[in-house]
Amino acid sequence: MVILMKQSCTKEQVEQVVATLQKCGLGANVSAGTQATIIGILGDKTKLGGLDITLMDGVEKCVPIMHSYKLASRDMCPEGRLVQVGNQVIGGKKLVMMGGPCAVENEESIMKAAIGVKAAGAQFLRGGAYKPRTSPYSFQGLEEEGLKLMRKAADATGLKVVSEVMASDQIDIAAKYCDMFQIGARNMQNFRLLKDIGKSKVPVVLKRGIANTIEEWLDAAEYIMSEGNYNVVLCERGIRTFETATRNTLDVSAVPVVKERSSLPIIIDPSHAAGKEKYVLPLSLAGVAAGADGLIVEVHPNAKQAISDAAQQLSVEAFADLLQKVGGIAQAVGREI
Amino acid sequence: MVILMKQSCTKEQVEQVVATLQKCGLGANVSAGTQATIIGILGDKTKLGGLDITLMDGVEKCVPIMHSYKLASRDMCPEGRLVQVGNQVIGGKKLVMMGGPCAVENEESIMKAAIGVKAAGAQFLRGGAYKPRTSPYSFQGLEEEGLKLMRKAADATGLKVVSEVMASDQIDIAAKYCDMFQIGARNMQNFRLLKDIGKSKVPVVLKRGIANTIEEWLDAAEYIMSEGNYNVVLCERGIRTFETATRNTLDVSAVPVVKERSSLPIIIDPSHAAGKEKYVLPLSLAGVAAGADGLIVEVHPNAKQAISDAAQQLSVEAFADLLQKVGGIAQAVGREI
Amino acid sequence: MVILMKQSCTKEQVEQVVATLQKCGLGANVSAGTQATIIGILGDKTKLGGLDITLMDGVEKCVPIMHSYKLASRDMCPEGRLVQVGNQVIGGKKLVMMGGPCAVENEESIMKAAIGVKAAGAQFLRGGAYKPRTSPYSFQGLEEEGLKLMRKAADATGLKVVSEVMASDQIDIAAKYCDMFQIGARNMQNFRLLKDIGKSKVPVVLKRGIANTIEEWLDAAEYIMSEGNYNVVLCERGIRTFETATRNTLDVSAVPVVKERSSLPIIIDPSHAAGKEKYVLPLSLAGVAAGADGLIVEVHPNAKQAISDAAQQLSVEAFADLLQKVGGIAQAVGREI
Amino acid sequence: MVILMKQSCTKEQVEQVVATLQKCGLGANVSAGTQATIIGILGDKTKLGGLDITLMDGVEKCVPIMHSYKLASRDMCPEGRLVQVGNQVIGGKKLVMMGGPCAVENEESIMKAAIGVKAAGAQFLRGGAYKPRTSPYSFQGLEEEGLKLMRKAADATGLKVVSEVMASDQIDIAAKYCDMFQIGARNMQNFRLLKDIGKSKVPVVLKRGIANTIEEWLDAAEYIMSEGNYNVVLCERGIRTFETATRNTLDVSAVPVVKERSSLPIIIDPSHAAGKEKYVLPLSLAGVAAGADGLIVEVHPNAKQAISDAAQQLSVEAFADLLQKVGGIAQAVGREI
Repeated sequence: MVILMKQSCTKEQVEQVVATLQKCGLGANVSAGTQATIIGILGDKTKLGGLDITLMDGVEKCVPIMHSYKLASRDMCPEGRLVQVGNQVIGGKKLVMMGGPCAVENEESIMKAAIGVKAAGAQFLRGGAYKPRTSPYSFQGLEEEGLKLMRKAADATGLKVVSEVMASDQIDIAAKYCDMFQIGARNMQNFRLLKDIGKSKVPVVLKRGIANTIEEWLDAAEYIMSEGNYNVVLCERGIRTFETATRNTLDVSAVPVVKERSSLPIIIDPSHAAGKEKYVLPLSLAGVAAGADGLIVEVHPNAKQAISDAAQQLSVEAFADLLQKVGGIAQAVGREI
Repeated sequence: MVILMKQSCTKEQVEQVVATLQKCGLGANVSAGTQATIIGILGDKTKLGGLDITLMDGVEKCVPIMHSYKLASRDMCPEGRLVQVGNQVIGGKKLVMMGGPCAVENEESIMKAAIGVKAAGAQFLRGGAYKPRTSPYSFQGLEEEGLKLMRKAADATGLKVVSEVMASDQIDIAAKYCDMFQIGARNMQNFRLLKDIGKSKVPVVLKRGIANTIEEWLDAAEYIMSEGNYNVVLCERGIRTFETATRNTLDVSAVPVVKERSSLPIIIDPSHAAGKEKYVLPLSLAGVAAGADGLIVEVHPNAKQAISDAAQQLSVEAFADLLQKVGGIAQAVGREI
Repeated sequence: MVILMKQSCTKEQVEQVVATLQKCGLGANVSAGTQATIIGILGDKTKLGGLDITLMDGVEKCVPIMHSYKLASRDMCPEGRLVQVGNQVIGGKKLVMMGGPCAVENEESIMKAAIGVKAAGAQFLRGGAYKPRTSPYSFQGLEEEGLKLMRKAADATGLKVVSEVMASDQIDIAAKYCDMFQIGARNMQNFRLLKDIGKSKVPVVLKRGIANTIEEWLDAAEYIMSEGNYNVVLCERGIRTFETATRNTLDVSAVPVVKERSSLPIIIDPSHAAGKEKYVLPLSLAGVAAGADGLIVEVHPNAKQAISDAAQQLSVEAFADLLQKVGGIAQAVGREI
Repeated sequence: MVILMKQSCTKEQVEQVVATLQKCGLGANVSAGTQATIIGILGDKTKLGGLDITLMDGVEKCVPIMHSYKLASRDMCPEGRLVQVGNQVIGGKKLVMMGGPCAVENEESIMKAAIGVKAAGAQFLRGGAYKPRTSPYSFQGLEEEGLKLMRKAADATGLKVVSEVMASDQIDIAAKYCDMFQIGARNMQNFRLLKDIGKSKVPVVLKRGIANTIEEWLDAAEYIMSEGNYNVVLCERGIRTFETATRNTLDVSAVPVVKERSSLPIIIDPSHAAGKEKYVLPLSLAGVAAGADGLIVEVHPNAKQAISDAAQQLSVEAFADLLQKVGGIAQAVGREI
């Protein structure tokens, strides 16, 4: 952290700040320029505790210059982390592909989805059993029954199961059926849930909140990792902007930014970003071209009749076509599917 | 909901849509204009179930024209709802004033805060016992011990206690000490928590999420109300925008918009919006001038040494001064403190 | 500016940066901490010319800590600037009130508006002669004829004329009829126009761009002032956010922020922010309560039949009522109308 | 447009609205549902003139359902428009590649850039002669002298020249040297400039404003086209969001959205979106994978010493490498470079 003093600050005020830092066990390096006096803090700024230097006399502002996450940072693991889910590895040369319906609806439907998703070449079956819905009057999911159906369909087809957990008391139940959890965008800063999933050690897809910066996202990953669970895969799914042509704005730049700042794998959810089935393919290709480690796509065996988010779900055939085209892009960037 | 057909749509496609609506028990009113064909849906659109008309051939798009919340709407209670918390009423002519530290730190400090807040003329003591923090390495709150200290300080001074609940399993504990709960911005769409607080029937301050529209906010209130708890007070605390001069951008327009669309009282949190102590006063005055039903302000007996959010907390003296000035504005708009 | 070196930087890289700064005639103050090495730049950073230190080996990033505007800053005129327009002063104890139609339509209408606006107690007649419209097929304004009509109506009633100039070649014509120019939100960074209005010395209302930060706004004011025209009044008129309940989101916090950083007066345009007539009153009261120096409000003698922006224009009666209520708020904050 | 009546509206109010529409020569189709009464307007709504139906008694709101641009729409040219610039075609199977420095600095430098850009396989030399800069104290460009140097370098290497025009009086001068104009993001709604470039008939790259929706962007293109200049190429260059890790957020979804709604070609500017040299490659690949018709990239022969925007300019070598990798992606999506 760097402290900028006011132009009108006195020598005593500067000394006061330096003395305060020293009392906290921190060093201070004063740069008295012609335009401004700056004090660099040497040492671990957590030693400041709750002290807010901004409030001291003569201080203009404090400029943070380092991030607060450690385990999630690139520095801690420059070669990048691989997340292992059973026999699947996420973050390596091979891209991971996840597909399945927005919500699990019934056995026949999820089985059809699983067969189609597997045949297309994916490794994970996705599907919502606990559904976060904006209105209390919308369909809320099949809950444990939905997870059972997913497990059955995945086992029958040789897929892994990834599904959203919305509350801590769902963790133990969901762990019986899922190979991997998902934390939804609305829960990215549900710190209690982050910690509890951290303790569970179950691999997890952490979606970015619709209005959260990449730094806050990495801080959220840090919550999970600080409990000992390093199996975190980030998922960019679009952010909220003023543009309404798409449901959200896919921040494809997040891929290279995350790759630079963090060691964690990152995948793309083109379905929630687009909100429309016809944009899912171009966004998938863009995500993989930008360096994403995989995709999580909404696929429904009878897309036009899906109970929720029908507009953005691909048919099984469209998903197979998508994977083939993604394969071409993957090859062009030195990856494979 | 209104359906806009594509310019190139055929007569058969229009008939297909009408037939589909009728099969769902809905009426359809076709307007075939020179520029476009529009189909108005007559009846309760929830009858559509999961059916997405957008996916039908010839359909350009569906335009929703009504909101999904009912209990929270103005229509259901045109005169406005009063929320009763013990002997205090929120939403009437008299404004409600809540003050206290960001986080409860220790007995001496919360007692001093309570005495100051009461003397200034407020009715509620606020303070965080469970703290949502962006980084896992920040101070996380005193939890139940903090709630006990708040209760004690409030009882000694004749104040009500309002405090944040972050997870469902905190509800029973918190209900022993609190007169009113607070749902934080990050949990505005933690639907499980909303429902469980709905069941608890404890009056609640529902903060707006930093990137949530007013419609989503009213949908969140509906979650609580649909469980039978009508004692909901909305709290505008700033939204996330591109502007970085303030921590968030106080959306003061939300006050008249909420007053028009909803029957629920709305208060302002100038502290989190501003992020800086010096902007708290002007934002408080603006909020009350715009018609807010009260304020919730961060106040700390020794503001410069607070453990969290020090930069935005008012001293007890500044809070007393603020309430006096707010009184002048209140009078100018036909309210009182 | 402060330079943060990479954690892995070498001693040679630090020396290289220092040497480069010195070659530019700048001092360098190195803080080698346990977590990071920071280099503070001493002197006027414009000496760097186009050199981008970020690109040097071992450099993590550069953190700007000072703003680039000078004449617009508070430091240059701590007591605040007063803008004189004929016998009117903007920025003093007395608030300035501007009212009039979105667009000048015809003589009868602008005369009625002027009479009503004057009777309500305003000092300026506003009205658009050159209209920036999103679609080329919308009404584009009466141009010089409109300005003539405004001048006539203003002279008949004793009001000043303020009107938008959209291009440099309109300046000379408009200067014949206007007491004050307005630069619209879409032209806030039309740097050519800013400079040319700077040269004209005509007092000007500079609206904030819908997606511009306060810092960029003050930089735009600096463009005008750097040409010798210090008669700049800032006007907050709402910024673009994800919220759609209002046309734009009035950033009422901009008032105290501008007051802190700049010496220029700031007024509020509640009409464009709200986009709806019924929100104009509460936003006006909020703006004045927050410390604004005046208001510019859309008023139409026959609001329901206005040619443009009808939805947000007040009737003459509503404007008179608004000014009376604003008077109450003004008094409460030590101002007057 | 569809009119939603208030739930409490009377039969007379509905009749009033219908009568008003008919007086304007418009038809009205009334759908009286159990939940709401909706009135569809039949005919060209410009017949309403300035009339705002929203203000009529009993009306809740008007919902626009059609866009206002015509020439720019996909409907008018379903096969897509090709923009011809000399012997180059933009919008066909072959992608267009534009490269060059942010600002023209001197003859040696622009000549080196041209040679490198041409050798890498690009068709256009880009470079700024008139520079829009946020601060009046930054380098403002070489103006006509810069254009001359660009023309010379382009002629020597067989490239086309594309350069920004910021004001109408620069059009005639710039037309002497440029094959194509660029309208910068800050001028996307400088309607006067749009019209004058429309009249000039010079092909133009129209950048998206940093806070403009795709609809507003197409309306801006309509301004140019409505003057008879159909040679418009759209350029996505990032929008302003809350995320600060990149200079702007590249809205890669704009590519498929524009392809669906408009017949105009669209290219990507990864340099201004990223703001950092290291993100330019992944964003370029993402843009082409999503279906863009080309790229405009900042390239500088001595990138680390560029006078402006140094941080985001590629070296000539990096640009050559980028084009090779883009070639791989192009092939994967059925295009070529």
